[in-house]
Amino acid sequence: MTETMQALAKTENGPGLTLIDAPLPTPGPRDVLVRVKASSICGTDVHIYHWDAWSQSRIKPPVILGHEFAGEIVEVGREVKGWTVGDLVSAEGHIVDWTCAACRNNQPHLCANVSVIGIDRAGAFAEYVVLPAENLWRNPADLPPEIASLQDPFGNAVHTVNAFKIAGKSVLVTGVGPIGLMTIPVARVAGATQIIVSDVSEPKLELARRMGADVTLNPSTDDLVSAVRDLTGDGADVLLEMSGAGPAINSGLAALRPGGEAALLGVPGRPIEVDWANNIVFKGVTIQAIYGRKIWETWHQMRALLATGAVDLSPLITHDLPLAEFEQGFALMRSRDEIVGKVILRP
Amino acid sequence: MTETMQALAKTENGPGLTLIDAPLPTPGPRDVLVRVKASSICGTDVHIYHWDAWSQSRIKPPVILGHEFAGEIVEVGREVKGWTVGDLVSAEGHIVDWTCAACRNNQPHLCANVSVIGIDRAGAFAEYVVLPAENLWRNPADLPPEIASLQDPFGNAVHTVNAFKIAGKSVLVTGVGPIGLMTIPVARVAGATQIIVSDVSEPKLELARRMGADVTLNPSTDDLVSAVRDLTGDGADVLLEMSGAGPAINSGLAALRPGGEAALLGVPGRPIEVDWANNIVFKGVTIQAIYGRKIWETWHQMRALLATGAVDLSPLITHDLPLAEFEQGFALMRSRDEIVGKVILRP
Amino acid sequence: MTETMQALAKTENGPGLTLIDAPLPTPGPRDVLVRVKASSICGTDVHIYHWDAWSQSRIKPPVILGHEFAGEIVEVGREVKGWTVGDLVSAEGHIVDWTCAACRNNQPHLCANVSVIGIDRAGAFAEYVVLPAENLWRNPADLPPEIASLQDPFGNAVHTVNAFKIAGKSVLVTGVGPIGLMTIPVARVAGATQIIVSDVSEPKLELARRMGADVTLNPSTDDLVSAVRDLTGDGADVLLEMSGAGPAINSGLAALRPGGEAALLGVPGRPIEVDWANNIVFKGVTIQAIYGRKIWETWHQMRALLATGAVDLSPLITHDLPLAEFEQGFALMRSRDEIVGKVILRP
Amino acid sequence: MTETMQALAKTENGPGLTLIDAPLPTPGPRDVLVRVKASSICGTDVHIYHWDAWSQSRIKPPVILGHEFAGEIVEVGREVKGWTVGDLVSAEGHIVDWTCAACRNNQPHLCANVSVIGIDRAGAFAEYVVLPAENLWRNPADLPPEIASLQDPFGNAVHTVNAFKIAGKSVLVTGVGPIGLMTIPVARVAGATQIIVSDVSEPKLELARRMGADVTLNPSTDDLVSAVRDLTGDGADVLLEMSGAGPAINSGLAALRPGGEAALLGVPGRPIEVDWANNIVFKGVTIQAIYGRKIWETWHQMRALLATGAVDLSPLITHDLPLAEFEQGFALMRSRDEIVGKVILRP
Repeated sequence: MTETMQALAKTENGPGLTLIDAPLPTPGPRDVLVRVKASSICGTDVHIYHWDAWSQSRIKPPVILGHEFAGEIVEVGREVKGWTVGDLVSAEGHIVDWTCAACRNNQPHLCANVSVIGIDRAGAFAEYVVLPAENLWRNPADLPPEIASLQDPFGNAVHTVNAFKIAGKSVLVTGVGPIGLMTIPVARVAGATQIIVSDVSEPKLELARRMGADVTLNPSTDDLVSAVRDLTGDGADVLLEMSGAGPAINSGLAALRPGGEAALLGVPGRPIEVDWANNIVFKGVTIQAIYGRKIWETWHQMRALLATGAVDLSPLITHDLPLAEFEQGFALMRSRDEIVGKVILRP
Repeated sequence: MTETMQALAKTENGPGLTLIDAPLPTPGPRDVLVRVKASSICGTDVHIYHWDAWSQSRIKPPVILGHEFAGEIVEVGREVKGWTVGDLVSAEGHIVDWTCAACRNNQPHLCANVSVIGIDRAGAFAEYVVLPAENLWRNPADLPPEIASLQDPFGNAVHTVNAFKIAGKSVLVTGVGPIGLMTIPVARVAGATQIIVSDVSEPKLELARRMGADVTLNPSTDDLVSAVRDLTGDGADVLLEMSGAGPAINSGLAALRPGGEAALLGVPGRPIEVDWANNIVFKGVTIQAIYGRKIWETWHQMRALLATGAVDLSPLITHDLPLAEFEQGFALMRSRDEIVGKVILRP
Repeated sequence: MTETMQALAKTENGPGLTLIDAPLPTPGPRDVLVRVKASSICGTDVHIYHWDAWSQSRIKPPVILGHEFAGEIVEVGREVKGWTVGDLVSAEGHIVDWTCAACRNNQPHLCANVSVIGIDRAGAFAEYVVLPAENLWRNPADLPPEIASLQDPFGNAVHTVNAFKIAGKSVLVTGVGPIGLMTIPVARVAGATQIIVSDVSEPKLELARRMGADVTLNPSTDDLVSAVRDLTGDGADVLLEMSGAGPAINSGLAALRPGGEAALLGVPGRPIEVDWANNIVFKGVTIQAIYGRKIWETWHQMRALLATGAVDLSPLITHDLPLAEFEQGFALMRSRDEIVGKVILRP
Repeated sequence: MTETMQALAKTENGPGLTLIDAPLPTPGPRDVLVRVKASSICGTDVHIYHWDAWSQSRIKPPVILGHEFAGEIVEVGREVKGWTVGDLVSAEGHIVDWTCAACRNNQPHLCANVSVIGIDRAGAFAEYVVLPAENLWRNPADLPPEIASLQDPFGNAVHTVNAFKIAGKSVLVTGVGPIGLMTIPVARVAGATQIIVSDVSEPKLELARRMGADVTLNPSTDDLVSAVRDLTGDGADVLLEMSGAGPAINSGLAALRPGGEAALLGVPGRPIEVDWANNIVFKGVTIQAIYGRKIWETWHQMRALLATGAVDLSPLITHDLPLAEFEQGFALMRSRDEIVGKVILRP
């Protein structure tokens, strides 16, 4: 083990990221030190790279980014029980206080005082990362690290699909970035009768078809609401809103049948105009907003879906790069022409 | 029984209503004819009076208005079973098709092809009204007709409060028109720990206090979000959004704790701007949009609340007028200075 | 405050109870000392008096009995916050460990390591009782102590009724000891369409009618299953099993419609024979076994039902005695001829 | 198509079955005629073979048995829409009335007036079977008929596992006949953390291990309750009772943690003695009795589990025989020494 390590950090207020030599972190008594084997780039990392309004309000440089990862424990704090050097792990990246109203109400994933790795504290775009032992998740030996690193976003997808009972229902997925793509096989194994996907990007729709979408629609050329009505009768039973785009949110809700259900994960960059009366109230819709993953219910669901072969995430990994080539990775994430799913970075 | 009857109708495209002599309606084989003893003015009737955008798109004059009422059966169609002349009744005003996706899914109150009395067909601002027998609700003999006429809006309130489990929860009610006011005693009997009410109208807040609100806030002068945080800690557990006002919707959601629940009944007149990311998605909120009343679950809940004395609606009836004085009634409904709850019209 | 106090205790292994002079208890740092104003006799106390098999396995004499009570705080431990001398209180009698699987799963009322006042530690049939502050419930000033003392069993009743959605449903209550009787007005305010009560005791059926039962049946003379079918069609929607008697359990389940729901509170004294295939499995019944009260959800529901006047427990208090006349009280509890609801004991 | 067909029937009151030449059945206007490609023997068929008490009360000879099957449509009634000759199908074997209380309450699988194929009307141990079109389920072309024929019992298993949320829970399966065996992979993909199986038959426990059980226990030699406690701490979170054996029911419930959940499918042949107080009431257990399959929710779940490869039922098919060799098939079903899963019969 060396005294310093390579890490990818936001070092100053402003766009861009820097590959730095950081001191090797030291685990506290309830922490472990993990050697990172694979990490992946999240859309949030791209926002931070480009220093958007949300990043400016939340990120306090210098901070090492990266919250999607898998690795191996190399050091264990003195009060930690149940974990040893060599254990293969990923982690729930939300470190919670267990005392706020949400935590006391069995909703720790909505903790009012959450600290997120790679956002509020040092992350996993690095050779090593320190984590509280209570946030560790054990990975099976036969799960490749690059797949294991996807469990953070895969958990978002599983959490979203499982917000409602899907069996026997028609499902509309608006927006197929990586998490939207992951909802497709999860909705399939949950028993969806029909999975309709919409996105303005043709390469993303191609990936959606590979992941098993029954129908793909492009709102640039298709009338989403009437197309979904034609396919379903009174409208889709369930909406999975993964885009965060105002038009997709409104037309996705408009394409629901009266009494339908909507799980909302997509995050608009600014306030949006919503036809609240017609798209929500008169429709009697049930909505579940999704943030993070349930601790640990969603993780157990993921393990089962991956271990049984019910879901295969490997077609989503379109690029695999050394950490030092991060600029190419972040450029790929913004590409409109190429087929880009998840980009792996290897420290 | 006379050959014609007095009725209050929208007779032409444009503002205002007209008291007319209408032919006495004839019940079909599965209908009954009801003599109206009391009716009450709904906010929807006020919108139709003033011929707003929604009214222009939905109302096809001539049509007799009025959907909140109580009366007595005076004639029974030949195929009707279980009802006889003299029975005291109100009615579920939504006539549904039982064949659309919502109806087949146990959500007939969200029927895609609903016909509403006093909107899509002749209503109860009249001496007599014809109703399908399957829409009748039996009123107890000791329930005064003016209280019985309030069951339509009271059902909205009961439906809204019962969208979530209220026992042990703090509740924020944004907007206290008559339905908002009715939610207060219903939330009380359901076990709310704290009922916080907000409205921009001081007379309405006075009525809210009479109905049992613990705290009243006026967003004209109070900072709703910080006031609710001060009262509750991390924010209210449950929001009952009864106003349909954009600022109330946003600040009501902002005043919820992470993982809180929101029942939405208020209907904005046009699309509104919503901070979707911060007020909905990041908060992991659960939302139930409310339209109408559950058939017949909500009606049974109403009967129980009224019959046991758990809820007393009489303080809400602030005015009681003959039908012919409808102009005064509609003027009262728009008054900003007077304390106006429900206005009864007696045909 | 005196150095000793009067208390009613099981002093030896064997039948009977003894009025003793006990040392005044001293509250620990997180406890309070409460002066008892009213207590009431539970069926469990009667079992302990008569030293049945269960009592012999659970009770370790000497122990002061009594877990249904109301009183006033007279001393506060030094680490207690939020409570002061003079506060009016009852208490959740189940002291839980917050660490077992049930506690961690939001079911502390099912704690694997519960300690119950008046059973496992000194109870409230005494002038004073010590309680952990975390178990206190604040009573309103206008709630008479004898009614407040009934909240422990009333909580059982409220917990039982609220196990299922009752609105619009037919309800069969088998067994109307005091808790069974209390379910009647609770089911009424929850919107039951029909409340059918069965018991082998005519005085208890008379009390059931006073509490609002629609129909009373006596299985000694009525065929319960066919009578309920005649009243309901395919059978009752919901069973509240409050008797613990084998025949009532079997015929109550047999009287349910296919797909019905059953909440089970009654406790048989020994294993019973059950027609598992026909009364449970083939029927597709949903069952919720009820123990204790939800902490604190049920208590908030009780407060609301009592404070709004929706439920009036006063007709249930048929006897009110000084503690010293406990022998008469326990004799009344076993009477088959008299109308006996709850018996209050005043220390 | 010939004028008669080979079929396996109960022809007289008494033990045994007879291979007969039956007239080819004629579909009514809303029926289809299906050529059976594969059928499988259910435990119920074995009971009917041996003419147990239940069979004597329910079966009216002569009747062709068999309700687990897959085949191909060869004739379509004149009012049938959406099905054509050549379609590959299985069927929901419960023909329901849509008018009883259960049917009107979204529980048609619990219809009070159900007619079951192969029990109450001619079944599928035959070259051809007539079915109402509304009971048909479309099989994918790539699903082998012998696997498709297992959907009836597989539906029981999927219905049982999905009675509760399994993700992150420890599961105890008592009894691993074929349906119990099928619950194992279904519980796995639902996210069970630990699947413990008990049975008195060593060959069945061997099959359970092949299907993925984590631990197998034999109550003949293991103390089930203490073994489960050792494995889980306070007891299993969820019980799947698949045996119908009194000792398994009692010890299975005793092995649950306080507040645990139990899904009950196993049917005892006669009333059983149950420790109702300790195993049910004091434990606060939640119970769902399971009968049949949800129409069509469970069928969509099955399709998803089979089509995605999440569940592989092929290891369960241990024998595949011509219909004429039915005696061997029924003998195998009763074997205690051989490893017998499902026995296929090919007409």
